[in-house]
Order: sequence, then structure tokens, then C-alpha cells
Amino acid sequence: MGAVTRPAKQDRSRATRQRLLEAAVSCLAEYGWAGSTVSVVAERAGVSRGAAQHHFPTREDLFTAAVEYVAEERSRSLRGLVAQDREAVVEALVDLYTGPLFRAALHLWVAAGDEEQLRTRVTELEARVGRETHHIAVTLLAADESRPGVRETVQGLLDMARGLGLANLLTDDGPRRAKVVAQWSSILDQALGRPRGADRQEG
Amino acid sequence: MGAVTRPAKQDRSRATRQRLLEAAVSCLAEYGWAGSTVSVVAERAGVSRGAAQHHFPTREDLFTAAVEYVAEERSRSLRGLVAQDREAVVEALVDLYTGPLFRAALHLWVAAGDEEQLRTRVTELEARVGRETHHIAVTLLAADESRPGVRETVQGLLDMARGLGLANLLTDDGPRRAKVVAQWSSILDQALGRPRGADRQEG
Repeated sequence: MGAVTRPAKQDRSRATRQRLLEAAVSCLAEYGWAGSTVSVVAERAGVSRGAAQHHFPTREDLFTAAVEYVAEERSRSLRGLVAQDREAVVEALVDLYTGPLFRAALHLWVAAGDEEQLRTRVTELEARVGRETHHIAVTLLAADESRPGVRETVQGLLDMARGLGLANLLTDDGPRRAKVVAQWSSILDQALGRPRGADRQEG
Repeated sequence: MGAVTRPAKQDRSRATRQRLLEAAVSCLAEYGWAGSTVSVVAERAGVSRGAAQHHFPTREDLFTAAVEYVAEERSRSLRGLVAQDREAVVEALVDLYTGPLFRAALHLWVAAGDEEQLRTRVTELEARVGRETHHIAVTLLAADESRPGVRETVQGLLDMARGLGLANLLTDDGPRRAKVVAQWSSILDQALGRPRGADRQEG
């Protein structure tokens, strides 16, 4: 093996891993936990079952890694949002819960409720993703968590976003959701008060 | 058949139906859609498979009827609440989404996302239960829906309640939920303004 082939091999391995993770999320969203075996995912990714198991020894490894991977992608794009008005931020947060990732995560949560082995992994993953999303939300909303009630206000907003995702599961709930988001953005803007840091400008 | 036996037979039939519905909900909450066959439910209800199929010809019939039955029981008890402060009402509404009914309904929704036959039934059921819950919420909160934004405010609250139910799926989220409910109740109280009908007492 020369110096040239090694990076190429690592790149291929990384690309295979990524294809498996993306295939796992789309299988979970489409077929649910019961229908998403490692073989089904490997086939969709165009990878042999052996190669899939080399990357992810167990089914639980594959699916928790998949949901974590996409959650991280989402967090990254969310962190990339530049300062915008609070309604745009609420919209972006709610969008996190209406796509195929949320659908996949929902399948994983529901399956985890019934399967002990999966439960511990998913609970831990959920807590981590939840903390990260809360942290990003606080930053984007320029919310001052030192003020009483602000932390719970942001938490409730994320709970509402999750609930809106659930309402979108069976039908396109977009038009109703847009109205709810507009109304609650204005309520939250009042409840959160001036953006953190606004004092300094006013002296 | 005498006049005496007929009502007894009807009572028995009604009792059997009810046992099946309750068993269906607990099976769904415990084993999920994949694990909840008509046979499993019949066994838990202590009823023969034939008797179960007499009441509910298909599996879809049994499970949509089961979720509808418990949703109606919940609506009935919710309607029975006497006028209370808004925080107590928000608590009662959120409680709708944290018990075994919500868990059962969630399994049904997630399964319906993947199964065409179930999807139409569950979508229709969801819309009906949603309208009914919204109507009860408006009444209990003494919200004046003729004012702009009030309808969406109540909808967002119910979305939040659903999201809180989801957060309670894997771990006991009670302590966090209590704080979110207290804070959002106070925000909601501001947003909704004076209870409908309060003018009359002051005018």
C-alpha cells in the first residue's frame, strides 16, 4: 500500500459509512423499525451486508448512529443561520421537526419504548440532541436565560415544535402550522422581552 | 328467549366489546402495532378470537375503535371539569397526552404512516378527535375565538401538549413538564386576555 492509496481508501470508507447512515434514516422513515433490517439498509446503500456490519456491528449501532448523524447535520445548518428576526428563528426551529429526520427519529423513539436494548441508547441520544437544540435555540432567539421563566419558555417552544411535527405525520399540516407559528412567534417575542445584549446599545 | 334474557345478553355483548377495546389500547401501548394482533388482544380480553371478530371484522376496525373509545372517555372526563383557573386547565389538557392512550395513539399514527389502509382511518379519526379537543379547550380556557390570533394560540398550546407527551415517551419527564406548564400557563393567560364573559360582570 503506497502513500497515495491510503487516503483514497479512508475516503471510500467514510463515503460508505455516510451512504449507510443516510440509507438507514430513509428506511426508518419509510418502513419503520420493524421493516428496517441491516440487510434492507445495506441494499439501499448499495453496500454488502458484510461491509455494513464492519461499520456497524449491531442494528442498534447503525440506527442510533444514523439519527445522530442527521441530527448533527441539522444542528450544523441551524448554527449557520445568521441573526434574523424571531419569527424566522421559530420557523427554522419548527422545520427541524417536520422532515424525514423527525419521521425517522419518531420511529426510533416508538420502537425504543418497546425494546429495552434500544431504549437506553435512544434515551441517551435524545437527551444529548435535546440539550444541543435547546442551546442553539437560546442563542438564535437571543434569549436571556438568567431571567426567570425564559428557560421554560424556550423549552415549551421546542415541545410545541415537536408537537407540530407529530401533527404533520399523516397529512400536510403546513397551512395550519404557518398560522400557529406566526401567532406564537409574536407571543414569544413579548414573553422573551428584549433580545439579550440590547441593553448595551441603549446604554 | 324471554324478555328477561335479552337485556342481559345485550349487556354481556357491550361488556365484551368494552373489554376488547381496553385490551386493544393496552396491547398497542405495550407491544406496538406489529405486536398487536387480534388474537393477542382477544387473549388479553379473555374472549375467543371468533367473538372478537364478531365485534370487529378487521384489525383496523378494532384499533381505530379502541383509540376512539378511549379518546371519547377522556373528552367526557375533560368536559366534566368545572371552571378552574387557566393553569389547572392547561395541566388537565397536557395530561391527555402523557398516559397510555397517547402512547397507544402514537403507535397507531406511526403505523398509519406506513400502511395505506390504516392511514385513511386514522387521519379521519385524528381530525375528529383534534376538533373535539380544540372545542373543549376553548370552552375550558374561556377563550374568545372572535379575537384575532386566539384560535391559533389555543392550537399552539395543544401542539405543545402533544410535544410534551412525546418527550414523556422514553423517560419520566414530569418535573421538567411541570415547570414548562407553569410558565406557558402564565404566557397563555396574558395572550388570551380576560376570560370570555368577564366583560359582563364589569360593564
